[in-house]
Amino acid sequence: MDTDPAMANFKVLYVLTQLCGLTMIVLMGSWVGVHMGGVGGTDNPALEFNWHPLLMTIGLIFLYGNAILVYRGFRTMRKKTLKVTHAALHMGAFILTVIALKTVFDSHNLAKTPIPNMYSLHSWLGLSAVLIFSLQYVIGFTAYLAPGAKESFRAALMPLHVYFGLFGFVLSIASACMGITEKAIFALGSSYSQLPSSAVMVNLCGVLFVVFGGLVVYLATNPAYKRKPIPEDTVLLTGSAE
Amino acid sequence: MDTDPAMANFKVLYVLTQLCGLTMIVLMGSWVGVHMGGVGGTDNPALEFNWHPLLMTIGLIFLYGNAILVYRGFRTMRKKTLKVTHAALHMGAFILTVIALKTVFDSHNLAKTPIPNMYSLHSWLGLSAVLIFSLQYVIGFTAYLAPGAKESFRAALMPLHVYFGLFGFVLSIASACMGITEKAIFALGSSYSQLPSSAVMVNLCGVLFVVFGGLVVYLATNPAYKRKPIPEDTVLLTGSAE
Repeated sequence: MDTDPAMANFKVLYVLTQLCGLTMIVLMGSWVGVHMGGVGGTDNPALEFNWHPLLMTIGLIFLYGNAILVYRGFRTMRKKTLKVTHAALHMGAFILTVIALKTVFDSHNLAKTPIPNMYSLHSWLGLSAVLIFSLQYVIGFTAYLAPGAKESFRAALMPLHVYFGLFGFVLSIASACMGITEKAIFALGSSYSQLPSSAVMVNLCGVLFVVFGGLVVYLATNPAYKRKPIPEDTVLLTGSAE
Repeated sequence: MDTDPAMANFKVLYVLTQLCGLTMIVLMGSWVGVHMGGVGGTDNPALEFNWHPLLMTIGLIFLYGNAILVYRGFRTMRKKTLKVTHAALHMGAFILTVIALKTVFDSHNLAKTPIPNMYSLHSWLGLSAVLIFSLQYVIGFTAYLAPGAKESFRAALMPLHVYFGLFGFVLSIASACMGITEKAIFALGSSYSQLPSSAVMVNLCGVLFVVFGGLVVYLATNPAYKRKPIPEDTVLLTGSAE
């Protein structure tokens, strides 16, 4: 495989994607830890909020992206193993997302002066992304992991599964960038425009989200990087995502 | 063509895309006109700003999306005519974008207390989208409209032209949603969370941006909707976007 120039190219981009993903998590963690006062429990709603951007970055961006990429990054694995890994990474993303949602609702509801929920464009689009993600999980699990789905149905559903999977992923990233915008304005006020280190850090986080997202979508949609069936894949699994 | 179910399906989605695009322009125009005090010239920087979201919606979202879609919506036209239309719509988008950028810089620089430029994530990502768009235009024009580019070069460049075209388009939409978030917070302050009609209107605008973008990308990437060469296309043009 190393002699194939497309695969050599893939490996470079794949490593770059992972470095970008890890950097954005470290950067978000540092921003929360250094500039936002760290994280806390329900007894401190302002600090409990800080779990929200951190867990969303790890779950709804990094794990979601890596769940998409398993079919490209681990192409020599059996199809069945890939599907289970895909579902498991998505489950990890889902659990972190649910916790991240709980912390933001808590931080609004438990504040001394409660803050209304679900008013901003960030919340509308972000929750839409979570709903699309969850529906995709249920439908994908039922169609591709649960036994009994007709082969023709699996094949017909696949383009929509891929499209809405990427749509939800890109919408998560866009929502995260709106969330960063909100939080930077709320936390920094008019000093945001002076670009203190906190602002530069969180802006760079947003840039990394976009680069990570762009790389994941490129690796997932470039036909040259598509996994080819291997002998270990049984006939039962044909027609599923490669 | 009407007997082909994929094409019947395409037509429904295409009309839906255009209705969604026109609605988002009307909604943005109404928001600017009704809630933001309308538009103005350099003598009133606050009102001059209002051109920015309106012209970006028409240029960098609606025209950009429609420039992408000409190869799908007008599939019976000659390839050469399609290319010229693609370039002309993109030129329209570019001109409106340049004016939209001028109005926002003016509104910052000419304000009684000047506002710093280029500090927000919206500005970083939005300007990146404009730069990607402009580079794409220059490279695309040189490779596909100017004579002399090698056929093999055109063909090799096409996947990247398509990828970065869609990347810039999606990044424009994400940036617009960040811009809406900023403006809603700056204009409404804490009353944003009470969801007055102005907030609902501008949030809905953001939702329409995302739906329009999702439809454009779906129509542009679904292989069933890809234009097939027609006899009028000369051999010289093979290998270009379909």
